[in-house]
Amino acid sequence: MTNPLSKTIELYDTTLRDGTQGEHINLSVQDKLLIAERLDEFGMDYIEGGWPSSNPKDEEFFLKARQLKLNHAKLCAFGSTARSSATVKSDQNLLGLLQSETPVITIFGKTWKAHSSKGLGISDEENAELIHRSVQFLKEAGREVFFDAEHFFDGFKDNPEFALTMILAAVEAGASRVVLCDTNGGSMPHEVDAIVKKVVATAGVPVGIHCHNDSDIAVANSIIAVQAGATHVQGTINGIGERCGNANLISIIPNIMLKLHGSFTHLQQLSQLTSLSKFVFEILNLPSDTKAPFTGKSAFAHKGGIHVSAVMKESSLYEHIDPKLVGNRQRVLVSELAGQSNIRYKADELGIKLPEKGEQIRNLVHHIKELEHKGYQFDGAEASFELILRRELGDFSPYFNVLETKVHIESGVDSKNVDQAILKVQVGNEIEHIAADGDGPVNALDKALRKALIHFYPAIKTIRLVDYKVRVLEEKRSTSAKVRVLIQTSNGQETWGTVGVSTNIIEASLLALQDSMNYHLFNVRTAIQKKAAAEA
Amino acid sequence: MTNPLSKTIELYDTTLRDGTQGEHINLSVQDKLLIAERLDEFGMDYIEGGWPSSNPKDEEFFLKARQLKLNHAKLCAFGSTARSSATVKSDQNLLGLLQSETPVITIFGKTWKAHSSKGLGISDEENAELIHRSVQFLKEAGREVFFDAEHFFDGFKDNPEFALTMILAAVEAGASRVVLCDTNGGSMPHEVDAIVKKVVATAGVPVGIHCHNDSDIAVANSIIAVQAGATHVQGTINGIGERCGNANLISIIPNIMLKLHGSFTHLQQLSQLTSLSKFVFEILNLPSDTKAPFTGKSAFAHKGGIHVSAVMKESSLYEHIDPKLVGNRQRVLVSELAGQSNIRYKADELGIKLPEKGEQIRNLVHHIKELEHKGYQFDGAEASFELILRRELGDFSPYFNVLETKVHIESGVDSKNVDQAILKVQVGNEIEHIAADGDGPVNALDKALRKALIHFYPAIKTIRLVDYKVRVLEEKRSTSAKVRVLIQTSNGQETWGTVGVSTNIIEASLLALQDSMNYHLFNVRTAIQKKAAAEA
Repeated sequence: MTNPLSKTIELYDTTLRDGTQGEHINLSVQDKLLIAERLDEFGMDYIEGGWPSSNPKDEEFFLKARQLKLNHAKLCAFGSTARSSATVKSDQNLLGLLQSETPVITIFGKTWKAHSSKGLGISDEENAELIHRSVQFLKEAGREVFFDAEHFFDGFKDNPEFALTMILAAVEAGASRVVLCDTNGGSMPHEVDAIVKKVVATAGVPVGIHCHNDSDIAVANSIIAVQAGATHVQGTINGIGERCGNANLISIIPNIMLKLHGSFTHLQQLSQLTSLSKFVFEILNLPSDTKAPFTGKSAFAHKGGIHVSAVMKESSLYEHIDPKLVGNRQRVLVSELAGQSNIRYKADELGIKLPEKGEQIRNLVHHIKELEHKGYQFDGAEASFELILRRELGDFSPYFNVLETKVHIESGVDSKNVDQAILKVQVGNEIEHIAADGDGPVNALDKALRKALIHFYPAIKTIRLVDYKVRVLEEKRSTSAKVRVLIQTSNGQETWGTVGVSTNIIEASLLALQDSMNYHLFNVRTAIQKKAAAEA
Repeated sequence: MTNPLSKTIELYDTTLRDGTQGEHINLSVQDKLLIAERLDEFGMDYIEGGWPSSNPKDEEFFLKARQLKLNHAKLCAFGSTARSSATVKSDQNLLGLLQSETPVITIFGKTWKAHSSKGLGISDEENAELIHRSVQFLKEAGREVFFDAEHFFDGFKDNPEFALTMILAAVEAGASRVVLCDTNGGSMPHEVDAIVKKVVATAGVPVGIHCHNDSDIAVANSIIAVQAGATHVQGTINGIGERCGNANLISIIPNIMLKLHGSFTHLQQLSQLTSLSKFVFEILNLPSDTKAPFTGKSAFAHKGGIHVSAVMKESSLYEHIDPKLVGNRQRVLVSELAGQSNIRYKADELGIKLPEKGEQIRNLVHHIKELEHKGYQFDGAEASFELILRRELGDFSPYFNVLETKVHIESGVDSKNVDQAILKVQVGNEIEHIAADGDGPVNALDKALRKALIHFYPAIKTIRLVDYKVRVLEEKRSTSAKVRVLIQTSNGQETWGTVGVSTNIIEASLLALQDSMNYHLFNVRTAIQKKAAAEA
């Protein structure tokens, strides 16, 4: 049922160009350079860097990109055909493309008659000539030229002859790829299948596919196009892009490799897929999509007691692929729906032995359910979860107590802004009463707590907060709603997450900060004890 | 190319059962009842309410659901086949299903040999008998029975005879639907197509499809199954569900109606699709997915100057469907990538006339770009955007100034918790110096500001905050990072959004609150002036 694909598939990434058209997507030039390097490392064949004449940022990118040392990937500049075929040689857009000095240039042209006749107001012959001359001009300047057939599927459904004529005009002028774009994202799988087959039979050059996700089927359409003979796939990392996004390469790649048994030229380490996805989310400053197929945090997460014990026995019966193949991992969710078996599995993962039965385990399950009811969740806060387990088992007791918290925020008072935290912290029998100013109230709190602890626990110095997230729960209660604060802390080698919930954002932050520091101190202490035991 | 589907398609919603297996998904009994009513109104044929014997919440749901007055939809209870075929009549799971008193019962059975032999440890014949007797028992109790063929596609690929035998055992016992489940979500479109065709040809009863999104193609697989002859589609609203989610009915429904020209029995008003999607996100207390096909806020949002003017001219050339058909609307994004033309379009939408040229419009564009650079975004905060425009044009000046802000947060001090805001607010020549306690610092701030303004502007009384969201920008800078606060305020008829950005969450909240109140006061004042002018 699954004959391997007979040809190697080319990967063309347009995260840096089409991806940036998405809402909430903003990339600096430096961001784009970082992503380009990473895409090359991963094994993309082509990286579309931007549309040089559309904005100065993209021009700067191509200038700086000349310093990039790429292993395999070829950089591509994107733009349109000339404004008129009479003035091709002086066309600002085409000249801008040449100035970007990329080995490959991708230009798009009209292949839906209505766009040509209404949008540009030109005849069919004029449009074909425009495409031909534009491609030819770039080709004669020594560049490889790919032709993006804009609105191709809609154009073909409307007028197949027109659409094919435009493609052939590009091929005759020397375009080495024709890429069929479902620009509005409305085509159905059976249409993509039929149309790609026709083009593959007539184009004479390798055919590419470029889908948008407006019908929620961009990944499937891309796969179907490849099965129909396309050998070049365009998309973006995490499916970012205008409206509902572009086809998601993060899903297309493992589907082609693991399900259709196809291959790519430079992509070797599919196990880098999850970290690539996370890297791009991070650079975009967007939360990663936990539900994302293959790479999401929930993609191999199991919930519900009975199911989980079966998954642990034989995971291939419950998982469509081995998560390790894409660099992801199996997880068991500690959730309201979960019974003892999930908590037990999680404890195992953390190397903590729970008692088989008895009051202690019942208390633990009860306590966790109660916290979840209050709005706690431990998915991104496993360190907080571990402290709860260890506390219940008597392994751990907090290294300090915050007895009093005061936070003063003042703006405009005597023309000054103040963010100050004052804490009374007990360590053993001593009480520290200290204050710190900060950049915002939570930062002041963090500084004050460190100040209070550092004499007792110098190890506090080595950790730093790397992420701080706030989620408003019960949004309908608006400003008096509960908030959940998730904090990620790092000691340079490892990173751990902690959580706090309260109606008061300052208090929720303090809870998460306390857990984070306690977790670190517990691990430092344990390491010292282990070392001492080994030496004894 | 698009022959209309010859048969009416049944819609089977499992948001309340399979949907709740998703991470971060929690529904109370009351939530489930609200959603069930809404699903019925929308036109679902079947609503799967839960798995009665798996948890007490679902049992309570079915008890209370007896009071629901549904128009068309039939409620379904979900569960497994009996534990052993010898004890069908005393099986707790089957008895629980009968006790739920739904007209339809859906039970799942093993159709992948490995699950039957390894998981249950029984022979093929025993498994067939288990399915047969379980279905028969429920059928004899007077219920309509649907059979969910668990892991069917994997099972069929492994051993087609085994998989088909199990289905036929259910049909012979009286099951009126067999639903093919891609439980692990790993099947490819061509496999779904081929396998569904075979089952449709042999099953003798209507065939259903139930997909999971682990390969990012659940929507496409569902459509392809329908084209292959399935006449019953299962999925969830917004694609919620375990791991990567279930097939998203919000995407499947418009694809079937608008693209494949299929029809449903009770679904009449497709224009309710967007509000159904939003309603479920709201009940789930999850932010709605802006990129969601068909119903997302970005689904018909256009970015980028040139493109926008074309879209305004002839939108059918740029949008795969008319957004009104699904209750959505076209939007133009005010973004960094945007030039004057986007801002102009947005101003048009708001009924504000901008000058054609000159310093004023240049200042405005500059000002907005600067704010966006600081982290402002106006997508969910059009009221803030409108105030900026009107201020620049001289239409609006703020109704008050906050001169000083002090916020004191204390916990554990003399065993008391305090969240207090003290404001100095100027209105005209008067200065109010007031304080208020609240539930969290932002709530205290909101209360204090209202207290300061209410004597001057009694209209403040009629508004209330309906949503409060915090987004941490520059997450890598952790606790000293900037935050963006988005607030939604309502006067009972209309809702508007405002935004504030600062490193201090209190200050960011205050900025958004101020905009929200100013916007309301501006509209009240304008309405009074219009009325006075009309009467004069």
